[in-house]
Amino acid sequence: MTASPRGFRSHAANVGIKDDSPDFMVVASDVPCAVAAVFTRSRFAGAPVEVSRAHAADGRAQAVACISKNANVATGEQGRADARALARGVGDALGLAEGQVLVAGTGVIGVPWPMDRVAAHLGGLAGAVGPFDAEAVARAVMTTDTHPKVAAASAGAATIVGIAKGVGMIEPDMATMLAFFFTDAEVDAPTLATTFKAVVDRTFNSITIDTDTSTSDTAVVLANGLAGPVPLDEFAGALGRVAHELTMMIVRDGEGATKLIEVRVDRARDDAQAKRVAKLVANSPLVKTAVHGADPNWGRVAMAVGKAQDDLDITPERTTIRFGDVEVYPTPMDEDRLKEVQGLLEGDEVTIGVSLGIGTGAATVWGCDLSDGYVRINADYTT
Amino acid sequence: MTASPRGFRSHAANVGIKDDSPDFMVVASDVPCAVAAVFTRSRFAGAPVEVSRAHAADGRAQAVACISKNANVATGEQGRADARALARGVGDALGLAEGQVLVAGTGVIGVPWPMDRVAAHLGGLAGAVGPFDAEAVARAVMTTDTHPKVAAASAGAATIVGIAKGVGMIEPDMATMLAFFFTDAEVDAPTLATTFKAVVDRTFNSITIDTDTSTSDTAVVLANGLAGPVPLDEFAGALGRVAHELTMMIVRDGEGATKLIEVRVDRARDDAQAKRVAKLVANSPLVKTAVHGADPNWGRVAMAVGKAQDDLDITPERTTIRFGDVEVYPTPMDEDRLKEVQGLLEGDEVTIGVSLGIGTGAATVWGCDLSDGYVRINADYTT
Repeated sequence: MTASPRGFRSHAANVGIKDDSPDFMVVASDVPCAVAAVFTRSRFAGAPVEVSRAHAADGRAQAVACISKNANVATGEQGRADARALARGVGDALGLAEGQVLVAGTGVIGVPWPMDRVAAHLGGLAGAVGPFDAEAVARAVMTTDTHPKVAAASAGAATIVGIAKGVGMIEPDMATMLAFFFTDAEVDAPTLATTFKAVVDRTFNSITIDTDTSTSDTAVVLANGLAGPVPLDEFAGALGRVAHELTMMIVRDGEGATKLIEVRVDRARDDAQAKRVAKLVANSPLVKTAVHGADPNWGRVAMAVGKAQDDLDITPERTTIRFGDVEVYPTPMDEDRLKEVQGLLEGDEVTIGVSLGIGTGAATVWGCDLSDGYVRINADYTT
Repeated sequence: MTASPRGFRSHAANVGIKDDSPDFMVVASDVPCAVAAVFTRSRFAGAPVEVSRAHAADGRAQAVACISKNANVATGEQGRADARALARGVGDALGLAEGQVLVAGTGVIGVPWPMDRVAAHLGGLAGAVGPFDAEAVARAVMTTDTHPKVAAASAGAATIVGIAKGVGMIEPDMATMLAFFFTDAEVDAPTLATTFKAVVDRTFNSITIDTDTSTSDTAVVLANGLAGPVPLDEFAGALGRVAHELTMMIVRDGEGATKLIEVRVDRARDDAQAKRVAKLVANSPLVKTAVHGADPNWGRVAMAVGKAQDDLDITPERTTIRFGDVEVYPTPMDEDRLKEVQGLLEGDEVTIGVSLGIGTGAATVWGCDLSDGYVRINADYTT
């Protein structure tokens, strides 16, 4: 049983979006919360993203609601009205203003939510919200996830619980990564925003499965303050641990993935350059298939680094490449090191290191291998 | 038998780079040529690219030589010395200065060329250069290509022959696209450069197989002038047709590819925006797997368009999406149109159209589907 932050209640249920699996959840705080949220930058952002972006803008909220199996994306004016109606309906049931409720969706694109079924369910919501059950909530936001994703940590007297969904950045029908964090720590909204942004950049924004970006990506933290203030560094550390744990669950659950790939780039001009290069390596289909086949083909890593075409300070002369701790470029490979590298590549976690020899910037990005399982899952799926 | 431009001779042979298949070719003109060349922008560009870039800088050259099965990439100072030695050796055999010879390589990365074998072969080169045989030359630059790629067109009294290699942008061991054009048209070097750049942008730079960019990509045109001047628009048109034909051969020969995907984006702010969006669609693994599975999942196209995060003028409200000539967004899909679209997707050429509703910019990009064949080829390959 995951520890729970004080003053949060939840509800998870099936409202008949697609089949009879859980597809609806609400988490509400007894008191108003500071809120910070990060959303997809897609130009086709879904209606729930648009509505939640507006509702979170003042740094205050008290509840989140999510419908899964249908993303409410590319649904036009009707979709926006439905997303607002969901927030209003949840608010009415719980005695909150519409603007105090954030909403999210994940699933099929281009199909409106069945608002008649949703409205019928909301009629009984007031009596159906019970003790906070993070696992039930995590289960209700799953689409093709193979297991619910929950993590928790404490910071002083406060508890942080996070739940997430996403099989990488992608799913058979549509990419979505959702993450919700609930804490009873007392943190003011601006500090929460800064801290959350930094944590998300190092965790959720440092994973990549297949370069595709969701129209629904949403990460939200609600802090209701019931545990009182905690030292900020302790809070940021705990939030970071919860986010990192969820991040690793997502990458390992990536579609068709058999191996976790960690790409560490250091000695870059700055952290941004390091992250850019790390993503080029982690996203390269040739690197991903080489890892899948346990092939010590460092030439593909060199090729991927070379794709940073506008980074004129990157040169082959300054660059070194490692698999695990074994340098594979420029030191010529010998039999012993080849064997060692092959052993590393046969594990279920492969670390690729690239030193650019320029400055002190560094970044780590996590991805997964590319398998025929990925292709089969996404090609055989039929809308 | 392909028509030949006047005044070119060639040689193709095996020099023992990897096995006993053809791996070496030279094409030389009897007289000096205007030259234009376009190279990879990779930061890990190979030694032959560096040397040829320098040799083509003055707009004059008289021969090209290519070694296949070994790219001479990430080979440091030795690699550069070897690339220069190849140019010098070919030049010595043919009575040309080193700077008149362009060189190219394709194949494995990180392994120096076997210069003893190359030098031994160059000793007999002078007597071994014969009538221009485009197919033999095309065959000698193949790596995992399944067939030699040759195309020709005439412009007035002049002939243009092009040869290319590349299974998309990628190969099991290393990505490479090479293209060589030979013509007896009389075109001055600056005009040739401008014309060639425009042609390459619309053809070779408009295809994408898997987002990976080669360290060896090279496209060269040699014009020796022996057919005299031809109208520039006629020359540009013929060069464009040859390049387009080679481009389509490359995409159709993409690893594991079973379908050609043509993405046409129009009503964009400008051509550059149109091309950027077309590449997002053509590169999306979710779009590519949907086409592979003949799934009419236009939501994945919308998602891919949405990845143009910095193009703030792109909105779902202005955008329309078509498969073939059938609009699939925003017009809701009905049974009849769904059947029509499924029929289109089952063909071996799928056209996806996106209108952004902003301006008059347009671009077409060609790619291929993503199959489990691609994964198997690239994962099972062992260095």
